[in-house]
Amino acid sequence: MHKIGIIGLGHVGTTVAHILLLKGLADELVMIDQDEGKVEAEYYDFADSFARTETSAVLKCNDYGELADADIVITSFGDIEATARTGDRFAELPINKKNAAEVGQKIKASGFKGILLNISNPCDAIVNELQKATGMPHQRIFGTGTFLDTARLQRAVGAHFGEAPQNVSGFVLGEHGNSQFSAWSTVRLDGQPISQFADAGQVDLAKLDEEIRQSAFRVVAGKGYTSTAIATCAVRIVEAIFNDKHEFMPASVYLEQFGTYIGYPAVIGKNGVEKIVPVKLPAAEAEKLAASAKTIKEKEDA
Amino acid sequence: MHKIGIIGLGHVGTTVAHILLLKGLADELVMIDQDEGKVEAEYYDFADSFARTETSAVLKCNDYGELADADIVITSFGDIEATARTGDRFAELPINKKNAAEVGQKIKASGFKGILLNISNPCDAIVNELQKATGMPHQRIFGTGTFLDTARLQRAVGAHFGEAPQNVSGFVLGEHGNSQFSAWSTVRLDGQPISQFADAGQVDLAKLDEEIRQSAFRVVAGKGYTSTAIATCAVRIVEAIFNDKHEFMPASVYLEQFGTYIGYPAVIGKNGVEKIVPVKLPAAEAEKLAASAKTIKEKEDA
Amino acid sequence: MHKIGIIGLGHVGTTVAHILLLKGLADELVMIDQDEGKVEAEYYDFADSFARTETSAVLKCNDYGELADADIVITSFGDIEATARTGDRFAELPINKKNAAEVGQKIKASGFKGILLNISNPCDAIVNELQKATGMPHQRIFGTGTFLDTARLQRAVGAHFGEAPQNVSGFVLGEHGNSQFSAWSTVRLDGQPISQFADAGQVDLAKLDEEIRQSAFRVVAGKGYTSTAIATCAVRIVEAIFNDKHEFMPASVYLEQFGTYIGYPAVIGKNGVEKIVPVKLPAAEAEKLAASAKTIKEKEDA
Amino acid sequence: MHKIGIIGLGHVGTTVAHILLLKGLADELVMIDQDEGKVEAEYYDFADSFARTETSAVLKCNDYGELADADIVITSFGDIEATARTGDRFAELPINKKNAAEVGQKIKASGFKGILLNISNPCDAIVNELQKATGMPHQRIFGTGTFLDTARLQRAVGAHFGEAPQNVSGFVLGEHGNSQFSAWSTVRLDGQPISQFADAGQVDLAKLDEEIRQSAFRVVAGKGYTSTAIATCAVRIVEAIFNDKHEFMPASVYLEQFGTYIGYPAVIGKNGVEKIVPVKLPAAEAEKLAASAKTIKEKEDA
Repeated sequence: MHKIGIIGLGHVGTTVAHILLLKGLADELVMIDQDEGKVEAEYYDFADSFARTETSAVLKCNDYGELADADIVITSFGDIEATARTGDRFAELPINKKNAAEVGQKIKASGFKGILLNISNPCDAIVNELQKATGMPHQRIFGTGTFLDTARLQRAVGAHFGEAPQNVSGFVLGEHGNSQFSAWSTVRLDGQPISQFADAGQVDLAKLDEEIRQSAFRVVAGKGYTSTAIATCAVRIVEAIFNDKHEFMPASVYLEQFGTYIGYPAVIGKNGVEKIVPVKLPAAEAEKLAASAKTIKEKEDA
Repeated sequence: MHKIGIIGLGHVGTTVAHILLLKGLADELVMIDQDEGKVEAEYYDFADSFARTETSAVLKCNDYGELADADIVITSFGDIEATARTGDRFAELPINKKNAAEVGQKIKASGFKGILLNISNPCDAIVNELQKATGMPHQRIFGTGTFLDTARLQRAVGAHFGEAPQNVSGFVLGEHGNSQFSAWSTVRLDGQPISQFADAGQVDLAKLDEEIRQSAFRVVAGKGYTSTAIATCAVRIVEAIFNDKHEFMPASVYLEQFGTYIGYPAVIGKNGVEKIVPVKLPAAEAEKLAASAKTIKEKEDA
Repeated sequence: MHKIGIIGLGHVGTTVAHILLLKGLADELVMIDQDEGKVEAEYYDFADSFARTETSAVLKCNDYGELADADIVITSFGDIEATARTGDRFAELPINKKNAAEVGQKIKASGFKGILLNISNPCDAIVNELQKATGMPHQRIFGTGTFLDTARLQRAVGAHFGEAPQNVSGFVLGEHGNSQFSAWSTVRLDGQPISQFADAGQVDLAKLDEEIRQSAFRVVAGKGYTSTAIATCAVRIVEAIFNDKHEFMPASVYLEQFGTYIGYPAVIGKNGVEKIVPVKLPAAEAEKLAASAKTIKEKEDA
Repeated sequence: MHKIGIIGLGHVGTTVAHILLLKGLADELVMIDQDEGKVEAEYYDFADSFARTETSAVLKCNDYGELADADIVITSFGDIEATARTGDRFAELPINKKNAAEVGQKIKASGFKGILLNISNPCDAIVNELQKATGMPHQRIFGTGTFLDTARLQRAVGAHFGEAPQNVSGFVLGEHGNSQFSAWSTVRLDGQPISQFADAGQVDLAKLDEEIRQSAFRVVAGKGYTSTAIATCAVRIVEAIFNDKHEFMPASVYLEQFGTYIGYPAVIGKNGVEKIVPVKLPAAEAEKLAASAKTIKEKEDA
């Protein structure tokens, strides 16, 4: 059976739950939030929909004990208002560092043996904290990281050329935050290096780069939070784990050389991070990556 | 191609949009809301997800002209806070009566020739208003009505007996609001009349009835609105229309004898309300239905 | 993780596998058939499709040992040509009785602890044989039985009235074979007893009954076998098990009073047959049920 | 509404129909085959499944007139036994050239104005013939071509490295037949050129190439035909058309410089072939492409 826990039922956690249920990916779903009324409300809103859906699930509320035999736990706690107000995901650090310590301790106490996927911001720093609190091996705990930012890069490049985002490969690397960068050396459209189109004057990469970085805040400005795209990314990772896909994607994984979790290409399967895939970067991009790692650590420890 | 318009991108309209996109039911989706920033935010949050989904759609923003060749328009405007505050969906009447007149006029002006499905509350009164404003034939404009309340009845009865909501048939009839009633004479569990279980002391129908009526407000109390279940119901109706299913369900349809839209069983297909299915009710339930119709009209005209 | 075994990769078993993979219901799929080349061919045809699908699975071939930790095993072995040639599913009894003994023994030896769902014909007799060979409790081993014939009844009644099959409730009971019967006393259209429509001269039940019974053979005559509808039914049961739905449906379940598996209403969940739901039948239908049970046992022991 | 026609209901056409119905991609499905009993059988097998599926469709049988307002027509006629017997898809040329002329004439006579997607073999030559018979613009008629062979390349490379086929980009180009070739210069694993892995001795490309070319025949040897993977590819193209995705993929498109349809990268959207994407090939691969084009034309005209 597929048993999934979601800790933090804000807009993101709820949307993750909804997609999981719609796609029939959860047989049992454990929903945990400090706000008990919110969990009860979502319980009934989901349960009321099961008369009209082909799939359904057994829903459990606010019981950490249920995580003992869960396959996957997704952490999506946080205080989006802090991020929205400041334009910096690190504004959520103080509250989420505390959350991570508490939640991590409870997950550990539950006897959880599955895979932990973190969405909470600042994503990379919070995986660091959750890993410390749970003591889980780095392979089995990781974050969505720049998987979302990469989706935005694919959307932005695709839209610029009137093509599908799937036609675009390559990554945004580094912090899921302001020090991230589009690794243009890795980006291709229709199999051709993006530099070729830039050289031909068909696209201004610096402009696109800024647009991608600001994407999240444009959404936050309009609705107060982001939810659909990040939740969709998280569910794709859940599918890669259940199907043991060994799918290649950027995610917030632990890099020994930097001593931190950070957005970097990896292969995801039933054991979590099946392997990290070294990518050769030109010096300028390698420096940006190192700088981004430094930023994550410094801010986390500040 | 499947072209769908959604007018009103609050929690409900956005969730309808999300389910439609996830299920690949819309090839083109026209999103309309007075809050332009909100529409832009949802546009990007959906577009950013398309790099990670199998299905996608062409998204159009705030252009009534796009409705000219739409297959289906869903109206989900409103002010849920008024309903949440008062516990009565009629608290949204003043604002939504005005919305219906304006929106209906714009839909008419667009040259729209498809099917209109209304979710806005008070659902039955607002379909009345939208029908008047658009001049559409009753067959092609209707509301979700008690399709949602019936889902709640199925959930509540099923849960009481530890069974799936699909095992429960029958309806909630009347206003999608406080004068609605569970038509227990129509309700069956596993093919057996519910009265049989009630007579055997296995269930207290009055208690269940109250629970069903209060379901929405329990959800509203916990999260400030309801979204998933109502959106799921709306999408099921969209599927019945596209697939020309001739599916039997309660919905807010126009009953000549009452001169109003009201929750009642009908068969839904590509022309909208393919037929209304007369149901024999015991005198007590027939009276409740008539009283509910009277309530809708009186409140609407107050 | 969802691990499913399919034993017998003819048209039905292959179609079951295909639907499971398309719906993402199997994380690991164990395909077993005496014809090793057929299993290899299906392995590659499925694997070649995974580059183009959102879901995938780990595929295992012809290894009974893999069933040790499978959640569900589906048996779909047989010789459809014998049934097609004779118009009687009991033509497959000699070969499938032998298959059931062998396959059942191997399943038992594997240490399988999940739920066994049999499709092989004659369905009821073969579940009897598989239950004996495996020694599994009746709750955890059952057959598709008249779940398919009931789908055909729903289609036939719905089509006669120009309505969706979902609008029709009630069952075909008894043998999944020639002694089955439409239990018209249980059948309703749009919530109304079918007898009401028959009394009004709107439908000839005897004619419909014959059409339903002959449905399978019309399909067999045209393509040599049936596959889509039966596979769809089997997958619906798989979903009910994984989601622990407690869904009400007719299936081939063990009835103590008859000492045989036979098509009868039950509630299906994660433990298999969660309960058998007694249905009050008029004397004529009760006699048909008893006669059908007798037919199954006599033919099985002949 | 989504209206799709399928001409030729063999294993491939039927599997295409099944996937379309399962995914809810067809609201109306027109099934055409010379064997009327086969069409009737599939009609009932699909219709019998609709009582158990969330989606359904209106099914039409053997009526070319219904194609007048179809969005997409898929041609999947042929005689797979000839291909299976000889190991060369051109063995089907004589019969399918005749089929293409007849079918093309009937499609033209129907007034069809949509997109035509050909699967029938030899795929490239048959699109040539269908284009001539229908007089359709090259943009609106094309074939699956090496989209399938490319899926096999992705599977083979992925499997060799224990990774998902989605991790592999690049194409098989040329004839969907024996003169096709893996354009290794275009192939990447996890974003890295495959040549890098070959140079490091991690993979033998010549061996993989042969395996990919023989993939189809291994499947044909085991089950007498191929169906799942090719049907999955065709449905992906249908989705790209309906969603107007502008998705980049190899397909059998018309190349002016060769005067024939041939497997080559293109961008697919609602108008069919939205653009052909020129790919720079090293001389050896460019020669193979030209030779393959020559083979298609010579064999077609022989």
